[in-house]
Amino acid sequence: SELKKCTIIPGDGIGPEISEAVQKIFDAAKVPIEWESVDVTPVRGPDGKFGIPQAAIDSVNKNKIGLKGPLMTPVGKGHRSLNLALRKEFNLYANVRPCRSLEGYKTLYDNVDVITIRENTEGEYSGIEHEIVEGVVQSIKLITEDASMRVAEFAFQYAKDNNRKKVTAVHKANIMRMSDGLFLRCCREMAKKYPDVKFEERYLDTVCLNMVQDPSLYDVLVMPNLYGDILSDMCAGLVGGLGLTPSGNIGINGALFESVHGTAPDIAGQDKANPTALLLSAVMMLRYMNLNDHADKIQHACFDTIKEAKYLTGDLGGKAKCSEFTNEICRKITQG
Amino acid sequence: SELKKCTIIPGDGIGPEISEAVQKIFDAAKVPIEWESVDVTPVRGPDGKFGIPQAAIDSVNKNKIGLKGPLMTPVGKGHRSLNLALRKEFNLYANVRPCRSLEGYKTLYDNVDVITIRENTEGEYSGIEHEIVEGVVQSIKLITEDASMRVAEFAFQYAKDNNRKKVTAVHKANIMRMSDGLFLRCCREMAKKYPDVKFEERYLDTVCLNMVQDPSLYDVLVMPNLYGDILSDMCAGLVGGLGLTPSGNIGINGALFESVHGTAPDIAGQDKANPTALLLSAVMMLRYMNLNDHADKIQHACFDTIKEAKYLTGDLGGKAKCSEFTNEICRKITQG
Ligand SMILES: CC(C)[C@H](C(=O)O)[C@@H](O)C(=O)O
Ligand SMILES: CC(C)[C@H](C(=O)O)[C@@H](O)C(=O)O
Repeated sequence: SELKKCTIIPGDGIGPEISEAVQKIFDAAKVPIEWESVDVTPVRGPDGKFGIPQAAIDSVNKNKIGLKGPLMTPVGKGHRSLNLALRKEFNLYANVRPCRSLEGYKTLYDNVDVITIRENTEGEYSGIEHEIVEGVVQSIKLITEDASMRVAEFAFQYAKDNNRKKVTAVHKANIMRMSDGLFLRCCREMAKKYPDVKFEERYLDTVCLNMVQDPSLYDVLVMPNLYGDILSDMCAGLVGGLGLTPSGNIGINGALFESVHGTAPDIAGQDKANPTALLLSAVMMLRYMNLNDHADKIQHACFDTIKEAKYLTGDLGGKAKCSEFTNEICRKITQG
Repeated sequence: SELKKCTIIPGDGIGPEISEAVQKIFDAAKVPIEWESVDVTPVRGPDGKFGIPQAAIDSVNKNKIGLKGPLMTPVGKGHRSLNLALRKEFNLYANVRPCRSLEGYKTLYDNVDVITIRENTEGEYSGIEHEIVEGVVQSIKLITEDASMRVAEFAFQYAKDNNRKKVTAVHKANIMRMSDGLFLRCCREMAKKYPDVKFEERYLDTVCLNMVQDPSLYDVLVMPNLYGDILSDMCAGLVGGLGLTPSGNIGINGALFESVHGTAPDIAGQDKANPTALLLSAVMMLRYMNLNDHADKIQHACFDTIKEAKYLTGDLGGKAKCSEFTNEICRKITQG
């Protein structure tokens, strides 16, 4: 059978080396896909504005699936984040970030197992802002029924498909009665269609407080854009940081998986980076493609390597190079 | 000399019993103030709308200082939170919440010592919302230069007065470039006037991530309204919850100190509540009034009682009644 093509955007800084690591591990696991590597360094379009190169857009539109390393945000006023531009361009409406305590990587918490599902297209990220008079600025938070229903449905379906017990809608409808109120009503309505998944609603501040005291209170969480930005980072902090947590942006027509850590320019090109976040994002991609056996194999090899702690990169307190960590994962895959 | 009058709003649920506890402890410490107790249960005004009773407003306006227990939010659409109404009525522009690890009350963290300073009058709490067309709602986040400068100044002055080393401005100006951008510029400008206080700026998501990993990275934090709501609760979670953390709302003409936990209707009237949050809020009030000796004495007695762990209320894992905990604090004050 023909190999499925996947777009890969290696990214900036440590992006190329961790992307190479993932590709090497995929090769070892004989994953039946073919990579199509594209560059998304902004180019000046016909209108004089900088944007994503057409070849990159075409590749993702054709393959409908991609993996992305970290991107630098161009410096200077008026440049919006390239990450956001990609989410927008492909209408990637749900951002999914699982956070799970890793056996073998000790933090203060050993019982984290939550998935934040973040509305990814509107809310506080609408980009609509005005200066009304000098010194008075408004930013518009936009909540629509369509986008809220869509992400709520995604959350409940995700819970069902992944045998999760509960969905918590996170909101501040006590303050933003109309906008968060609409989001919440959509979640309530969707909950009725999934009677086997427990549903609860909680204030964002309460979730933040409870999460640091007892993360086991939560399971799947669904929320407007900004709240997801905050909560997913906080949860990542509980299990060891953005170097260990994957992320997927799911759209109607495709999906883009990405590591959400930075480009780490200080260690770029030195074979020191930890590829785990990108690798686990790639594992999410495999599950999205129903390549679950390959996903399991790679995930186990990665977790086992971390657990054994013989080949850990600097960020995890070890001394291994990126390539040594990667080779050990490959070895486990091919030999075990 | 005449006694300074302070308004006290005992509040709902456990409010009356914890307020009584605080008054008892103040008596034991011979604090030179006189309480004026007022009720803020909403009454119907001449316009038919429910609002804060005039007598309560008059009392706070006259005394310019108050202490407040928890309030129930009236049920039903259109009722805005009474807490918010009070902040608005008295133009209490800065919300100050110190969070400190308590010796003797063990949590996962023992190195928390941060103060969140939250803009308290605008931002996401503007209350301005519209349904543009069916299913499309906007909420307006309002940031003004005046309010941002005012709270930034408060934060730096607070840092200076309290020998704190650093102020961190918390923002998402990478997303809300104009609104959070304005807030951030005001902080930068104010920073120049306080060369002895270190200044740094951090993204909200980054602060959330770092805070759960290493709270000692932060000192004084200043931020727009909603971010303060979230971060202050999160920090409270790190040290044991809202039952242990005080809060002050500072205005131009006065200040209102309050415990921010709930009314706990399930244990109300049973002499089981923990008065610590309200007591520590009252201690903040004393410092605001420059009654530092009384503040120190009460604070030590409270912390020592918690540390000894002989008389702890149920929320702290003990079996003591509210009155027993209170009496022990009084005993320490009068005997030593
Ligand atoms: C880089 C930034 C624009 C982005 C966001 O705010 O969404 C990031 O924090 C994330 O969570 O993916
Ligand atoms: C009760 C609620 C309206 C309030 C807020 O959102 O500010 C509370 O969470 C707080 O932090 O004081």
